Amino acid sequence: METVIDFIHTSRDRYISELTEYLAIPSISALPDHADDVGRCASWTAAALGRVGLENVRLIETAGNPVVYADWLNAPSAPTILFYGHYDVQPVDPLDQWTSPPFEATVREGEIYARGAVDDKGQIFMHVKAVEACLKKTGRLPVNMKFIIEGEEEIGSTHLDGFVRDRKEDLAADVLVISDSPMFDRGVPSLCYGLRGLAYFQIDLRGTSRDLHSGSFGGAVANPCFVLSQVLSKMKDRGGRVKIPGFYDDVRPLRDEEREAFARLPFNERQYRTDLGAPKLFGERDYTTLERVWARPTFEVNGLLSGFTGDGAKTVIPAVAMAKVSMRLVPDQQPDTVAELFETYLKKVTPNTVTLEVTRLHVGKPWMTEFDNPFVKAAGRAIDRGFGRTPVFNREGGSIPVVSTFQEVLGLPTVLFGVGLPDENAHAPNEKLNLSNFHNGIIASTFLYEEIGKLSG
Amino acid sequence: METVIDFIHTSRDRYISELTEYLAIPSISALPDHADDVGRCASWTAAALGRVGLENVRLIETAGNPVVYADWLNAPSAPTILFYGHYDVQPVDPLDQWTSPPFEATVREGEIYARGAVDDKGQIFMHVKAVEACLKKTGRLPVNMKFIIEGEEEIGSTHLDGFVRDRKEDLAADVLVISDSPMFDRGVPSLCYGLRGLAYFQIDLRGTSRDLHSGSFGGAVANPCFVLSQVLSKMKDRGGRVKIPGFYDDVRPLRDEEREAFARLPFNERQYRTDLGAPKLFGERDYTTLERVWARPTFEVNGLLSGFTGDGAKTVIPAVAMAKVSMRLVPDQQPDTVAELFETYLKKVTPNTVTLEVTRLHVGKPWMTEFDNPFVKAAGRAIDRGFGRTPVFNREGGSIPVVSTFQEVLGLPTVLFGVGLPDENAHAPNEKLNLSNFHNGIIASTFLYEEIGKLSG
Repeated sequence: METVIDFIHTSRDRYISELTEYLAIPSISALPDHADDVGRCASWTAAALGRVGLENVRLIETAGNPVVYADWLNAPSAPTILFYGHYDVQPVDPLDQWTSPPFEATVREGEIYARGAVDDKGQIFMHVKAVEACLKKTGRLPVNMKFIIEGEEEIGSTHLDGFVRDRKEDLAADVLVISDSPMFDRGVPSLCYGLRGLAYFQIDLRGTSRDLHSGSFGGAVANPCFVLSQVLSKMKDRGGRVKIPGFYDDVRPLRDEEREAFARLPFNERQYRTDLGAPKLFGERDYTTLERVWARPTFEVNGLLSGFTGDGAKTVIPAVAMAKVSMRLVPDQQPDTVAELFETYLKKVTPNTVTLEVTRLHVGKPWMTEFDNPFVKAAGRAIDRGFGRTPVFNREGGSIPVVSTFQEVLGLPTVLFGVGLPDENAHAPNEKLNLSNFHNGIIASTFLYEEIGKLSG
Repeated sequence: METVIDFIHTSRDRYISELTEYLAIPSISALPDHADDVGRCASWTAAALGRVGLENVRLIETAGNPVVYADWLNAPSAPTILFYGHYDVQPVDPLDQWTSPPFEATVREGEIYARGAVDDKGQIFMHVKAVEACLKKTGRLPVNMKFIIEGEEEIGSTHLDGFVRDRKEDLAADVLVISDSPMFDRGVPSLCYGLRGLAYFQIDLRGTSRDLHSGSFGGAVANPCFVLSQVLSKMKDRGGRVKIPGFYDDVRPLRDEEREAFARLPFNERQYRTDLGAPKLFGERDYTTLERVWARPTFEVNGLLSGFTGDGAKTVIPAVAMAKVSMRLVPDQQPDTVAELFETYLKKVTPNTVTLEVTRLHVGKPWMTEFDNPFVKAAGRAIDRGFGRTPVFNREGGSIPVVSTFQEVLGLPTVLFGVGLPDENAHAPNEKLNLSNFHNGIIASTFLYEEIGKLSG
């Protein structure tokens, strides 16, 4: 008789064609023009959950995009997994840097290229197909499962916090599983025990009521482009340290054991630099690259726009200048506290020759877990069985803001069971997912359910 | 019998409808998409010159946009005016700030609104109509005239320098007349005796080969947006003084008499600030606003573009960051020398964490004339007769780079016979031209020809 694993092996091509259909929906939550696509993607997700045999499938409306819910609760003595994912994706600009169109998934050299491939449709779909294989071949799951797939992760999970707080009982579970993070490296599966938080802002400076001819007026008024440069340059010193007063006050220092563990990981700094195409690496003095990215907060400029940006020359003093900026935060920084420190400092360093508007676009808390809890250990065994290698423990530079919400509201331990790779261009052109990892991830997911099923519920 | 002046008065409405047709051609030389419009505008200009009775009308091809030529050389004992203007216009972005479409000229409260209204189609057309009135009513002009109207002024007059050098004999004249500058203020006609020069650049910084997720990579590499801010902020100090070493070495100091003359002009700093909608004026310490704009060099950022600039938030570290920057120059700064000083300093202050590309987009020389030469005096009398007020003498912050070429190659004195106003939004949304000044300017132009005709040729 065909086993669950055999079934997965023989379904490989079908998985890719189904995933291609999922990746074709441009569910960009940041762009209002794509609101219909986001709605269509929610329905597609719900239908996919229903088709594999999950129950109570429904779209739950929020003040924003709907949350897709489904469950399977027929294993009374086993624990319950709450699975979280997101069906929305990042914008695709700059479009001209994509080798193949972002919403026409294309397989090249064992990778599937499309926006959402790794972040997060591919990793949601891995679990959907793991559930399918279990239900189809055994008629049951070894655990209870509740799925919630949201549509606002890429815009700060605006309504998820309230959603979880309002449905505390409905969402009760024993462990939260999320597959939305990369493994440490190709061939080095890992379990992630820490994430950074985020505080993201837009800065708008206005110098004059209209754009001015730089000949007729150059020298008479402050130029908001130049003032913006001055203001931004005051956010970090030459050594890469953030200059916002109080910014580091709540930063939990790295423990010696962590620094030693990071140093033992197979990390080739030269290869990393070459992969990024950077002339050299640069970051906060006295920290290694992994420490900087995983355990230290940052200040980044994410976008700049002002004045004339076309081909050629236009001699204009722009009326306005805009920057998108964000800070990655680490335990125990509080996003709202940091946001206030930033806004206060920004106001202080902005001269009164321009008017300043600062908009808080989103915030998310950093997170850390204990890596000796039984669910994390169970996940370690599942990875070992699925990928044939014992996972390493790592932290991650990115944010999954809802993790802290789940921890805080539902009191759940979290397993970050990600199968992406660090170079898979999440949030950038040519996003991709390695198909071996996707395939082994489906197998490992069935082992995860089995390993967690063995724990007491 | 109807006089020249009567004819001008009765032609008012016709002038506006003809000018509207001229302003409808989007001859934006900076944008390659508008190449056909630029060509069409050259032909329209040539036809307009021919229709009023000018002779030898032709389009002279260059390696770029054609120059329109026409002449009238039938006053053997009189001097010859070489008239220079440009039929190309600035880009129109930001388009959403225009009250009426930029290429559908609209008259509101005595002003005609359109791109090119004052810079420079309206002022070219003023002379075309002055010539028409003279030839139609008297059958002759009181001077000889040669018209050259180019199509690349807004992109640095790339090919005009060579054009003038190659046709030194054909362009021989006694005086250069240009109507491409504003009068000092509404009701204060003026003669401009100095212009600033220009050096304009694009800066491109690259940090990595692709955009990166700011979570996964934030802290590990330099952010080109942030580096760009650092680099730009090093170009001027807090007092508004340019920090490029050697930048001020060749600046001709203001003479005491000039400072005193500027101080006597009817200039209301508060009104000026209010008109611009600026929270406060700001410029180089120890200079007045007029001194800063007319007689001191500047450094301006004209545009910024990098990373994510749409609505909402995208957590990206951009791969590249771009700035357009320019310097206004004053006598005796040499644009090429300043450009080299800037490029050297830029390379010095750009850290090796990014790669730098700097492109010189255009340069133009500053210019000054003696204001007691007979042609300038003749122009003063023409303005007095046409506008009923004695003109003041002023300098201008803008650049007409070709003025120095004409002075250098043809040895001509220049009369800047401009009827624009300083608030007519040249290079900005809602460009306009005051119709009274346009109309009085046609009358004054006929007087200019008459006054110059009285001088010995």
